[in-house]
Amino acid sequence: MTTVIVQGATRGLGLQFCKALASRNNINVIATGRTADTSQDLMDLASNAKNVHSFSLNVTKEEEVKSLSEKIQGKFGSSLDLLINCSAILHPSGKGETSLRDVSGQGLEDTLRTNTVGPLLMAKYFSPFLLKGQGRFGVQDEKSKHSGVLVNITAKVGSITDNSLGGWYSYRMSKAALNMATRNLSIELGRGRNKVVCVSLHPGTVNTDLSRPYHKGVAPDKLFSTEQSVNYLMNIIDNLSVKDTGKCFAWDGSQMPF
Amino acid sequence: MTTVIVQGATRGLGLQFCKALASRNNINVIATGRTADTSQDLMDLASNAKNVHSFSLNVTKEEEVKSLSEKIQGKFGSSLDLLINCSAILHPSGKGETSLRDVSGQGLEDTLRTNTVGPLLMAKYFSPFLLKGQGRFGVQDEKSKHSGVLVNITAKVGSITDNSLGGWYSYRMSKAALNMATRNLSIELGRGRNKVVCVSLHPGTVNTDLSRPYHKGVAPDKLFSTEQSVNYLMNIIDNLSVKDTGKCFAWDGSQMPF
Ligand SMILES: NC(=O)c1ccc[n+]([C@@H]2O[C@H](COP(=O)([O-])OP(=O)(O)OC[C@H]3O[C@@H](n4cnc5c(N)ncnc54)[C@H](OP(=O)(O)O)[C@@H]3O)[C@@H](O)[C@H]2O)c1
Ligand SMILES: NC(=O)c1ccc[n+]([C@@H]2O[C@H](COP(=O)([O-])OP(=O)(O)OC[C@H]3O[C@@H](n4cnc5c(N)ncnc54)[C@H](OP(=O)(O)O)[C@@H]3O)[C@@H](O)[C@H]2O)c1
Repeated sequence: MTTVIVQGATRGLGLQFCKALASRNNINVIATGRTADTSQDLMDLASNAKNVHSFSLNVTKEEEVKSLSEKIQGKFGSSLDLLINCSAILHPSGKGETSLRDVSGQGLEDTLRTNTVGPLLMAKYFSPFLLKGQGRFGVQDEKSKHSGVLVNITAKVGSITDNSLGGWYSYRMSKAALNMATRNLSIELGRGRNKVVCVSLHPGTVNTDLSRPYHKGVAPDKLFSTEQSVNYLMNIIDNLSVKDTGKCFAWDGSQMPF
Repeated sequence: MTTVIVQGATRGLGLQFCKALASRNNINVIATGRTADTSQDLMDLASNAKNVHSFSLNVTKEEEVKSLSEKIQGKFGSSLDLLINCSAILHPSGKGETSLRDVSGQGLEDTLRTNTVGPLLMAKYFSPFLLKGQGRFGVQDEKSKHSGVLVNITAKVGSITDNSLGGWYSYRMSKAALNMATRNLSIELGRGRNKVVCVSLHPGTVNTDLSRPYHKGVAPDKLFSTEQSVNYLMNIIDNLSVKDTGKCFAWDGSQMPF
């Protein structure tokens, strides 16, 4: 069996990743979400698709991540082929900061906790599983094979180099820090005989709750459905190999600067 | 009078910035630190140099930053020429994480709070002062003058592009996010008629408490005294102009990738 975890799977891209992955053969899709017990969409998916297993997880709580890793080991063993960290908030208020006036220490801390600390905690507790994966995702490099793939969903606005508009302090800072986490993970998990390919992926602007207040200004062909975006991203994931580790790619496969 | 604030001034580079700046003419050096009331070195400096004014500030507490900004306005007016954000921790444990095993959510959060949230809070409450500065630092570009200079002390290990060793998760992630803050600030504070030049500066490896556990492996000529490092950095600051804003420079003036 192939095993994947989608973290942040109650809505939006995370939910769509679960749907897309569930249609593959011999796969267990572990869907985690803060509101997994009340998300009607995820509950419907898990009852229709017998290979989708839903677990409640607030990713900002280290004890919850740890105890979920023990529960999953008991149920599915300790081999994992793919982890996708999907959860994020734009800001606790639902709107990105337009200027410093909108910045608050608490808002920045909460955003960093969900978007940055949470994904790194997932890496801490599940990288031992990924190191024991069967390499079912991506393309095996003949010289240097990998056992697992770790994807952090980032955003183009998390590129410091690319930033020419400013604003969205908390979200931008959280994604820049997440990209550093990806890079660090690629080094630590690329050293041994077993390797995990670690990448940051930008999904494009997608028709989900997260960016909803900003969709009006987006050209229709630049606003992806979750299906479109997940198709693009799964195509990237299915072609990843060890040479890609530590990098950041956009939905169209282009490499992004940090 | 020229006015500067050095935030994180009880020890190390911050203390040395205060000493170096206090030797200039017609300057008020406002030194803030969490332990300003008990740091013997800072108290000695403030009693010997009459132009050094010490204030207690834990930079992670937004109310403290806010109320200090009001106090300073009352005492020194609302014009500021230079703000240097110096405070940082490597990790609450005093040691950078060697591997994921050493990562804790709490340690990462605490590091982000001091190294990233604090400096942005300083920018929030003191950028109105910097926008009213007299442009006493740096070199005025004939076409585009600036009123103030904002310096975030970063670290080479905060460059994602440059990261080939891994480890030090919390510190690296906090400095990558800080570099994003610098970039965002440069955009917001570079828009209007009054401008603030915002840069991240890497001081080299310096003989201070922060990196002390790691000095053994450093070649003697690569381990700077605080005097050496502050000389280098003040030389950069004295030559900054609007064209440099949003960039990251190392002690030798070279631009660093993000
Ligand atoms: N949509 C875009 O335009 C866009 C663009 C660039 C990047 N992205 C990135 O794409 C990823 C997916 O976002 P989306 O567009 O699908 O947004 P979304 O529809 O708002 O979904 C966000 C997901 O994150 C979960 N979440 C939030 N806080 C959590 C926590 N503490 N613990 C566990 N889960 C938590 C939410 O769960 P709850 O149901 O519990 O709230 C939800 O499932 C994010 O990383 C986002 O930054 C999106
Ligand atoms: N030393 C190096 O090799 C090196 C290399 C690259 C970059 N840097 C950067 O250089 C800057 C200065 O560091 P340093 O080497 O001078 O280290 P240091 O001697 O350890 O000084 C750190 C300063 O930060 C202050 N601080 C910590 N937490 C604080 C808080 N919550 N509120 C207010 N102040 C707080 C400390 O004050 P307390 O007395 O209250 O603890 C102290 O004054 C840092 O940004 C560091 O990341 C240093």
